[in-house]
Amino acid sequence: MSFKVTILGSASARPTPNRHPSAQVVNIHEQYYLVDAGEGVQQQLIRHGINPLKINAVFISHLHGDHVYGLFPLISTLGLYGKVTPLKVYAPAPFGEMLEAHLRLFDQQLPYSVEWVEVDTTRHALLFENRTIEVWSVPLRHRVPCSGYLFREKEPGLNVEKFKITKYGLSIAQIAAAKRGEDVTLESGEVIPNRELTYRPYAPRAFAYLSDTNYSGKAVSLCQGVDLMYHEATYAAAEQRLAKERGHATTADAAKAATRAEAGRLIIGHYSARYKQLDELLEEARAGFPESYLAIEGETFTIEKQR
Amino acid sequence: MSFKVTILGSASARPTPNRHPSAQVVNIHEQYYLVDAGEGVQQQLIRHGINPLKINAVFISHLHGDHVYGLFPLISTLGLYGKVTPLKVYAPAPFGEMLEAHLRLFDQQLPYSVEWVEVDTTRHALLFENRTIEVWSVPLRHRVPCSGYLFREKEPGLNVEKFKITKYGLSIAQIAAAKRGEDVTLESGEVIPNRELTYRPYAPRAFAYLSDTNYSGKAVSLCQGVDLMYHEATYAAAEQRLAKERGHATTADAAKAATRAEAGRLIIGHYSARYKQLDELLEEARAGFPESYLAIEGETFTIEKQR
Repeated sequence: MSFKVTILGSASARPTPNRHPSAQVVNIHEQYYLVDAGEGVQQQLIRHGINPLKINAVFISHLHGDHVYGLFPLISTLGLYGKVTPLKVYAPAPFGEMLEAHLRLFDQQLPYSVEWVEVDTTRHALLFENRTIEVWSVPLRHRVPCSGYLFREKEPGLNVEKFKITKYGLSIAQIAAAKRGEDVTLESGEVIPNRELTYRPYAPRAFAYLSDTNYSGKAVSLCQGVDLMYHEATYAAAEQRLAKERGHATTADAAKAATRAEAGRLIIGHYSARYKQLDELLEEARAGFPESYLAIEGETFTIEKQR
Repeated sequence: MSFKVTILGSASARPTPNRHPSAQVVNIHEQYYLVDAGEGVQQQLIRHGINPLKINAVFISHLHGDHVYGLFPLISTLGLYGKVTPLKVYAPAPFGEMLEAHLRLFDQQLPYSVEWVEVDTTRHALLFENRTIEVWSVPLRHRVPCSGYLFREKEPGLNVEKFKITKYGLSIAQIAAAKRGEDVTLESGEVIPNRELTYRPYAPRAFAYLSDTNYSGKAVSLCQGVDLMYHEATYAAAEQRLAKERGHATTADAAKAATRAEAGRLIIGHYSARYKQLDELLEEARAGFPESYLAIEGETFTIEKQR
């Protein structure tokens, strides 16, 4: 029952020799979701041991090249790998035009379909759902329409305490009823309330991806209580004005967002190429939010289960 | 008076963790030419110490993604770098459609122009010329229209032997005449033939880039006597049939091409991802052409001047 985020890219628009543009993989219960797809993402995936064929769906925050240029080569290579199942891509408009141009000019023979789902960047909406998770859009404040993504585990099913099964001699039918949340009537006629028999195996976990954006109180309020927040910090705290002008955030903005959202941990990234060393950015973020960490490519942040 | 080829990509369509798709930089007299532009080429340039702003012109062999996907992000980043001079891109049709789609969807505000020069892949034609070099197209045999490129240094200007200047007491005007190739008449009336006064400082050098292609006798004949030949060798010699079917070459094909062209040295590359180790490919090439070398990313092949 994994819940992990692996960093594949940590640079902003200008890559450096060792930092790729934005991309992350979220692994929830061994289902893989790609979030942003900067240039080189297919190589970053295989470098870090993730089979590109495992990608279940792709979520693109916005259509600046450094968040999407890697998707088109990945689409081609998945065809060479022999992918046959459709690939869903959640992205703002006009992604459909980009996809159409790509398929027409480069991939007319693709053996699988790529299906675009338009993301309305002005709304907090449920985009994707399966048995175990929901993915929500989170409106952000950038120079172009831009959406964050909130990955929320659903409430897990109830478990029945083993020693209660023994204590009350529960039948399989009674255990199933308890798991459905029902009270159980014993042969004696005694009714055992559901809450005495069952427990939630773990608290649902959540991860928020917030990039690219100015500080946004609205986004923060939508991500209340997340275990892990990725918030871009393109600039150091001293560059507040520049960050604001360019639709970006500083280390201080990121720390403020994590603090106000009462997040468990904060990852900062999307570093401007001007920062050769990242220690000072980390120090600044930690001054505002002690549980801050750097996005380092290849590193995985795991959210452990907690009851 | 440099003449160097730096390998930026050595993979075929499926990159590996350590091999990027096709790209090379040719540096002739400190003018830089990019040949093919696979995904990640902008990062490969800066990794290997080449300022992307120095690229003078780009030559694209064909429009399979692994030879061109890196060009669009590079175009964007050159805009961020503040490039203002035009960038010429030599490529087969329909590159113009790709460029139009890219500029419309990603780079409407580009501060410089990108100018496409169409390459007719059926012709051996002079594409580019400046004071010191010529670049020619070389028709190749691939699954889609594809052109190799032949970089030829022009005949360098004549130098006048220093001891002849002393011996005959030549004036500045007489030296200039000799450099223009004229005979010189001394005050005594004696005529000194030009060939007695002058020499070519070095033999013009040449590099041929031949990828992607089946073995082509025509291409070989157009590259007669090149100092350095890059010939794709996607497959080992045993895969001759597969190579032929897919429009590719084997190590044996590459060695045959270098042998028949009487090339100085051969570089093989565009390795299929199936080859984790490259030693056997090199051995096979050397069995047919001893002066064979592997394309290894970051390595530079220098053609030294020879009189």
